Amino acid sequence: MDKIRVVEIREDITSRNNIGAEKIRRDLLAKKIFYLNVMSSPGSGKTTLLTELINRLKSSYRIGVIEADLDSAVDAQTIAEKTGVKTVQINTAGACHITCQMSGEALAACGVDGLDVVILENIGNLVCPAEFDTGAHENLVLLSVPEGDDKPLKYPLMFEVATSVAVTKTDVLPAFDFSFENAEKNVTKRNKNAPVFFTSALKGDGLDALENYLRERIESIK
Amino acid sequence: MDKIRVVEIREDITSRNNIGAEKIRRDLLAKKIFYLNVMSSPGSGKTTLLTELINRLKSSYRIGVIEADLDSAVDAQTIAEKTGVKTVQINTAGACHITCQMSGEALAACGVDGLDVVILENIGNLVCPAEFDTGAHENLVLLSVPEGDDKPLKYPLMFEVATSVAVTKTDVLPAFDFSFENAEKNVTKRNKNAPVFFTSALKGDGLDALENYLRERIESIK
Repeated sequence: MDKIRVVEIREDITSRNNIGAEKIRRDLLAKKIFYLNVMSSPGSGKTTLLTELINRLKSSYRIGVIEADLDSAVDAQTIAEKTGVKTVQINTAGACHITCQMSGEALAACGVDGLDVVILENIGNLVCPAEFDTGAHENLVLLSVPEGDDKPLKYPLMFEVATSVAVTKTDVLPAFDFSFENAEKNVTKRNKNAPVFFTSALKGDGLDALENYLRERIESIK
Repeated sequence: MDKIRVVEIREDITSRNNIGAEKIRRDLLAKKIFYLNVMSSPGSGKTTLLTELINRLKSSYRIGVIEADLDSAVDAQTIAEKTGVKTVQINTAGACHITCQMSGEALAACGVDGLDVVILENIGNLVCPAEFDTGAHENLVLLSVPEGDDKPLKYPLMFEVATSVAVTKTDVLPAFDFSFENAEKNVTKRNKNAPVFFTSALKGDGLDALENYLRERIESIK
């Protein structure tokens, strides 16, 4: 097996993005609004997990949701119908990630004043969204059991920028070659600080622990 | 639910890419080498399906494989071990897609002369690789059952550039809310010409049909 390395010359657009993101983070902090960015591959269960978490948190906190997609409003409709919280759909017209500028525009469209928590469901993409800081206080990265426990090895940056990781769809574990131990080991290789939660939104497994963690994080900025 | 549209101004780098890709396609055609580009989300089963297909095709054709990843050589090792065919790993150092330039360099590194078929396993990403023509004659797009049958609605371009679609992991159908009928309908919405195959690399379901389709496509350029 031969091995070659292709290195692209890329402009440092991400460093400019970081400056804008830092401002968003500071401004929301001053208003005591917690901003949660949820990232994963397509079909890892972001919308389903968020529906469960929002329904657990909405009696304690005023929540707004930003749903980002290339096209369609499938997820925003689901979240709005199943949770009743304020939901904004942004369509990126094909763009693969959310820049801090898009993030800021979506927050403005959402109308964050009076909210305690804003949740961004990012584009389903395990690559590009990791490069663009949205200004969130928490990056929750999902890894579904069907995807395989090797993904942190193959998509390093996403797991490096994660502040927490949720393994999802644990109810289908028997049908897949997936080891909780390997998943945790591979996440830790990329990131020693992110706690890993094992969850099934369908069965409810692990949701108490993840909910409690998020409550602590939300309270930490009050 | 509010709906806003974020449109990014992007340079037309893809049109320059298209010119280079067209040259690759023509040059390979002149040498009667069939170039197959396989794209999907992370963890949709590209490597497992390719292993099965290569083992079915390798007695008829001389095959080379290009494995593209952000980092690691997990997939290239798997393909090399399980099929014995010539395999080249390219690492994109974090880049989210394969440009025609990377494609050309990888083909050169693979050493295509004397081969009948070159297979590119693209970066696991349902967004960006669709924007960059690699010069392939066939774009096989995978959609795994656990991802959900709505993905063609949410990732339109990927299914528009597909020349064929393989629904994968059909063996786990009972555990998921996935309808073959909806999947086919949603693919057809984006693309009337791409045939859809329903496959399980684990159980062998649908592999004969996909193999026969690929044989026809390979023979069509001889």
